[in-house]
Amino acid sequence: MSLDDAKAAKPHERLARALETDLSAVDQLIRTRMASENAPRIPEVTAHLVDAGGKRVRPMLTLAAANLFGYAGTHHHLLAATVEFIHTATLLHDDVVDESGQRRGRPTANLLWDNKSSVLVGDYLFARSFKLMVETGSLRVLDILSDAAATIAEGEVLQLTAAANLSTTEEVYIKVVRGKTAALFAAACEVGGIVGAASEDQIAALRTYGDALGIAFQIADDLLDYGGDTSATGKNLGDDFRERKLTLPVIKAVARADAEERAFWTRTMEKGKQEDGDLDQALALIAKHGTMETTRQDALDWAARAKAALEVLPDHALRDMMRDLADYVVARIN
Amino acid sequence: MSLDDAKAAKPHERLARALETDLSAVDQLIRTRMASENAPRIPEVTAHLVDAGGKRVRPMLTLAAANLFGYAGTHHHLLAATVEFIHTATLLHDDVVDESGQRRGRPTANLLWDNKSSVLVGDYLFARSFKLMVETGSLRVLDILSDAAATIAEGEVLQLTAAANLSTTEEVYIKVVRGKTAALFAAACEVGGIVGAASEDQIAALRTYGDALGIAFQIADDLLDYGGDTSATGKNLGDDFRERKLTLPVIKAVARADAEERAFWTRTMEKGKQEDGDLDQALALIAKHGTMETTRQDALDWAARAKAALEVLPDHALRDMMRDLADYVVARIN
Repeated sequence: MSLDDAKAAKPHERLARALETDLSAVDQLIRTRMASENAPRIPEVTAHLVDAGGKRVRPMLTLAAANLFGYAGTHHHLLAATVEFIHTATLLHDDVVDESGQRRGRPTANLLWDNKSSVLVGDYLFARSFKLMVETGSLRVLDILSDAAATIAEGEVLQLTAAANLSTTEEVYIKVVRGKTAALFAAACEVGGIVGAASEDQIAALRTYGDALGIAFQIADDLLDYGGDTSATGKNLGDDFRERKLTLPVIKAVARADAEERAFWTRTMEKGKQEDGDLDQALALIAKHGTMETTRQDALDWAARAKAALEVLPDHALRDMMRDLADYVVARIN
Repeated sequence: MSLDDAKAAKPHERLARALETDLSAVDQLIRTRMASENAPRIPEVTAHLVDAGGKRVRPMLTLAAANLFGYAGTHHHLLAATVEFIHTATLLHDDVVDESGQRRGRPTANLLWDNKSSVLVGDYLFARSFKLMVETGSLRVLDILSDAAATIAEGEVLQLTAAANLSTTEEVYIKVVRGKTAALFAAACEVGGIVGAASEDQIAALRTYGDALGIAFQIADDLLDYGGDTSATGKNLGDDFRERKLTLPVIKAVARADAEERAFWTRTMEKGKQEDGDLDQALALIAKHGTMETTRQDALDWAARAKAALEVLPDHALRDMMRDLADYVVARIN
C-alpha cells in the first residue's frame, strides 16, 4: 500500500493496520477465552457476533493508548479483549432489551437462538471479562472497568425509564449516552494509559478523550436517525421516533415547542399514539426549530473536546489517528 | 431465648443469630451499594428481591467461614455482600430465562416491571458486585468469584441445551447443578476462609463443603419436585416434568427404561407432547425403578461429604451449625 492509500483510508482502518500484530493477539485471546468445554452454545453465540466483524474501535483504543507510551508487555491485550467482551455482552443484552432482529446486517442472536441464550451467554462473557482483567493484577484497572460496567447498565436502565418521557432533559440524555457509549470508550482509553505507565495528567486526558469521543459518536448516530444515510448506521430513518426514544433533536424541539406542538409530542412520544404522517410532522418541527443544526453543533463541540484532550499526549502517529477518529465520527453528519 | 429454643431452631436461623452483627453490616452495605442516583428503577427492583427476605445462606457461609478463624476485619462483609449481589443478579436473570411469575411467594420483578428491567438491573448488580470485591484488594478472591460467576452462567446455558434432551447423563446433571447452585456456595465458603487466613488445606475443605452442600441442596430440591411438601420449595409438584427439565429421578428412570417406557419419555420430555395423566405415569415409572430412593441416597451422600470436609476446620460453634446445615438441607427429603 502506498502512502497516499494509507492517508485515504478511514482512521479506524489506519489504526487497525498500525495495530495489526496486537489486534491478532487480541483476536486469539478472544477466541480462546470465549470457549466453553461444558456448554458449546456459548462459543456458537459469541462467534456469531465476533465474526460479524465490528470495527473493534474499543479494543483499538486500549492498544493505541498503551502503545503511545511504548508499552512492551502483553497486559494491553488482556484489557483490549476484556473491553471487547464487555461490549459483546452488552450487545447481546441490548438486543434482548430492544427486541432487535438485526445487528450489523445479520439476524441477532436472540432471533437465531433465543432470548434466554442471549441473556446467559452475555452473563458468561461479563464473568470471563472480569477474569481476563484479574490476570493483569492491577486493582486500579479492575476498579475502572467494573465502574464502567455499572455505568453502562445504569445508563441503559435510565434510558428505559426516560423513554416516552417528555420531561427528559439534555442533561439526562447525556447521562444515558455516557452509559450507553462513552463509559466504555473512556475506560478503554484510560486503562491503556495505565498499563502504558502514562502520567496522571495523561491518563486523565485519555479518559476525557474517550468520553468526549463516545458522546460525539452517539450524538451523531442519533442525529442520523432523523436524516442521514441510513446505510451508515444500519438503522431505518425514524427508528428512535417509532420506539419513542427521546434523543437530542427531539429533546431540543420539545424545549422550544408551543402548546400545539407539545400536544403533538405528547401524543406521539409520551402516549405512543402514532399515525401515518407523524414522522413527517416530527421532521417538520425539528426543521422549524433548527434542532438538527444545534444538535450537529453539539456533536462537533464534543469532537473538538476529544481532540483538545490529546494535546498532552506524546507526539505519535497513533495520536494523529486518534485525532482523525474524532473528526471521522462527526464527519458523517457534515 | 433459652438454650433449648436455640437447639430447636433451624441451623440457618441459628447461624443468623450467631452472625447477627455481621449480617447487619452486610445488609447496610447491600442497601448503600444497590442505590443508583441516576436510575431509581435500580434500587426499586433490587429492594423488591432483597426485601422478600431470602434466607441469606450464601452470605452467612462467607461470614461463618471467616469467623471460624477469628477474622476481625471488615472484608468478609464486602465479600458477603458481593455473594448476595451475584445471587440476586442471577435470580433476576433466571426469572427472565424461565419466564417465571413467582419467586418466594411474590410476583417476580419481570412480572412487576418487565424483562428489560430484570436483565439490566441484573447487569448492574453484577458490575457492582465486582466493584465490591475489588475493594478487598485480594486478586485471589477476585479470581475465585469471577470464576464462580462464569460457572453459574455456563451451568445455566448447559441446562438450556440439556433440557428436553433424553441423552442427558448424571454427569451432565451434576455439571448443571454445580453451575446453578454449588459454584456460588463453594466460592462463598472459600473466600471466607481466604480473608480469615485459613491454611490451604482448610480453604480447600471449605470449598469442598460448599460444593457438596450446594449439590445436596439442589438434588433434594429436584427430588421434592416429584413428591414432597410443595410448600417447602414454592414450586408445584411436577413443574420440572412440565418444563421438560431432566433431573436426577427422571435421568435415572430413563437409564433403566425398557423400549415402551423410553417411548413415553421421548414423547413427554423430548417432544414435549404431554397429555392428562402423563405426570402420574412419570411418577409410576419413577416408583417402579425406585429412583426417588436412589436419588435420595445421592443427596445424603453429598451431605455426608460436606460434613466430612468440615473435620479439618477449627472446633467452633459455627462449624457445628455448618454441619447441622448439611443435615438440614437433606432432612426435607427424609
